[in-house]
Amino acid sequence: MTKYKSLLLREKEEELQNDLLIRTIKGDKTSRRPVWLMRQAGRILPQYRAVRATTGGFKDLLKNPALACEVTIQPVDELGVDAAIIFSDILAICEAMNLTYDMVPTKGPVFPKVITSRADVEQLRVADGVDDIGYTIEAIKLTKQALNGRVPLIGFSGCPWTLFSYMIEGQGSKTFSKAKKMLYAQPEVSHLLLQKITDSIINYVKAQIEAGVNVVQLFDSWAGVLTPSQYNTFAFSYTKQICDALQDSGVPITVFAKGAYHALTKLSDLNCDTIGLDWTIPRAYARGIIGNKKAVQGNLDPCFLYADRAAIKQETIKMINDFGNGRHIVNLGHGVYPDTPLDNVKCFVDTVKNYEIKYS
Amino acid sequence: MTKYKSLLLREKEEELQNDLLIRTIKGDKTSRRPVWLMRQAGRILPQYRAVRATTGGFKDLLKNPALACEVTIQPVDELGVDAAIIFSDILAICEAMNLTYDMVPTKGPVFPKVITSRADVEQLRVADGVDDIGYTIEAIKLTKQALNGRVPLIGFSGCPWTLFSYMIEGQGSKTFSKAKKMLYAQPEVSHLLLQKITDSIINYVKAQIEAGVNVVQLFDSWAGVLTPSQYNTFAFSYTKQICDALQDSGVPITVFAKGAYHALTKLSDLNCDTIGLDWTIPRAYARGIIGNKKAVQGNLDPCFLYADRAAIKQETIKMINDFGNGRHIVNLGHGVYPDTPLDNVKCFVDTVKNYEIKYS
Repeated sequence: MTKYKSLLLREKEEELQNDLLIRTIKGDKTSRRPVWLMRQAGRILPQYRAVRATTGGFKDLLKNPALACEVTIQPVDELGVDAAIIFSDILAICEAMNLTYDMVPTKGPVFPKVITSRADVEQLRVADGVDDIGYTIEAIKLTKQALNGRVPLIGFSGCPWTLFSYMIEGQGSKTFSKAKKMLYAQPEVSHLLLQKITDSIINYVKAQIEAGVNVVQLFDSWAGVLTPSQYNTFAFSYTKQICDALQDSGVPITVFAKGAYHALTKLSDLNCDTIGLDWTIPRAYARGIIGNKKAVQGNLDPCFLYADRAAIKQETIKMINDFGNGRHIVNLGHGVYPDTPLDNVKCFVDTVKNYEIKYS
Repeated sequence: MTKYKSLLLREKEEELQNDLLIRTIKGDKTSRRPVWLMRQAGRILPQYRAVRATTGGFKDLLKNPALACEVTIQPVDELGVDAAIIFSDILAICEAMNLTYDMVPTKGPVFPKVITSRADVEQLRVADGVDDIGYTIEAIKLTKQALNGRVPLIGFSGCPWTLFSYMIEGQGSKTFSKAKKMLYAQPEVSHLLLQKITDSIINYVKAQIEAGVNVVQLFDSWAGVLTPSQYNTFAFSYTKQICDALQDSGVPITVFAKGAYHALTKLSDLNCDTIGLDWTIPRAYARGIIGNKKAVQGNLDPCFLYADRAAIKQETIKMINDFGNGRHIVNLGHGVYPDTPLDNVKCFVDTVKNYEIKYS
């Protein structure tokens, strides 16, 4: 329980006004569930679009700590969520390792050069975190000051396999067959790259924690394209390294391995505090495996926020009840889609905030 | 057992020279596993690329029964697989319902007009199968003659949810959020469209059976983007209608609901004979649920065929053993990728054909 001692200390030092997220992770029987949304600092908010319009685009915004701070806090003001998540990009770490990318409108990230060989991997550096992604570290510091304890701030990183995928594919993919080909055809080179990414992530997350984040979430967005065996060898084992390296940090860790339903038992034994669940996972099944060993986070289908508000309210309450009395952080099962009506997002958040938990 | 009686009759009438697939489905303890590959009639074969180069493109080939027959048989000649699958396109049925599409090189199918409203759905017709997709029905008849009983011929259709997705999205998608939005925002219109598609599929598959296919496979390629509850309401229930409508046809049905791991128990109770499994499903888990109630089909990761041949051989044998003594049709867990080395595909097929099953 060393971890939670240091967590309590950090919390006390800060005097968080809304500590619902932290207390839920710790296992307190809170009277309602905490709620936030993946991608809440983004295009669903007109305020975000206004700030972004003043910049040269996504990457300009990303690298401007004052503006990143501003858009991080917008959903706390506008939606009343119980946590802020720092505005950044999982691919920032690729650039810090010497592999640059462009954010192409309507297409997403595109890497002009990709990794194809051992020589390519050897030319990459291990990111040191503080200096290499200084803009996000600075944004975290500014946000902590600006939030002044209103809600906890969540830091994050992509997981090694997901970053590896982008570094090989050079962009998004339906099948990730190039990245998977690398695993099957060049397993040693793959491990070399995954280890370099892992070491970079550990440095980066430690820098985020040093700068003041209260929770860290690790996103393995492409976990679901791997076989159970390949997920274990090339993804889970590296995520485990990160969790192990951070276990004495005093900051709770959330692992969200999207699509890795088959690995839930192993995930529930990680040195982490919360397991993120995508919308395809049956709730009773997940709770049955995870029990109350960890908090769960999720998992409303982001597309449900296209329904009418009566249906959103009903389904949100159903989700809370489905997860039962154990620890639960309400979220979607994936990032909120940019064209989601704002009033529907508010309906989702307000439903959670108005729904009292009765403990049996 | 009426079904298998009529199946035996059809088989006997035809005197299939290689009836391994049919005997496996029926539950015979065959001395080796049958093997074929999803998308085997396609770009992996130089012979296919040569035929296609003589046409105006994919859709020209699709609509030319003589050429469709030719490319259907190519993998039987070149790879020595235990079944042919008719060269067609799951989207042919959309066109038969009055919604045309173009096959755009490097992009895939694109529908100039998509379904957005009840009025759009009402303008669609229920395809009658024989006339509306006559080119594929004709290709089936030609192929049956040309095969002359060498191996069974598999017919196929997309499942209603997958065809619905394309008709709403107008093209492939990473999230299928437009199609899912339709389910959540306009459930009644969604059911109306799904029923029209289902009725069309039943007509179409019956026409395929009439024309002589020995097995029918139903592909629900996008099952995995739905929540368990939505899958049940908007996908499974319609697939079930199709299976029920075909149960007296005398032809075994395979259902491949990619990504619907959570529905395996329900799938194993369908009026069908074989369950296709994608590569993310743990084999012991699947066999544990399905038992020997159905044959299983799959599930090597298509990317494994990028590995070296010793690894392909080892993993293929491991897969066969993982599925145990129950009924198993060897295949990949998804369609073979176009850039797979042909020698690796042959290694996969030959490994299966040379591996004797010992029954305990």
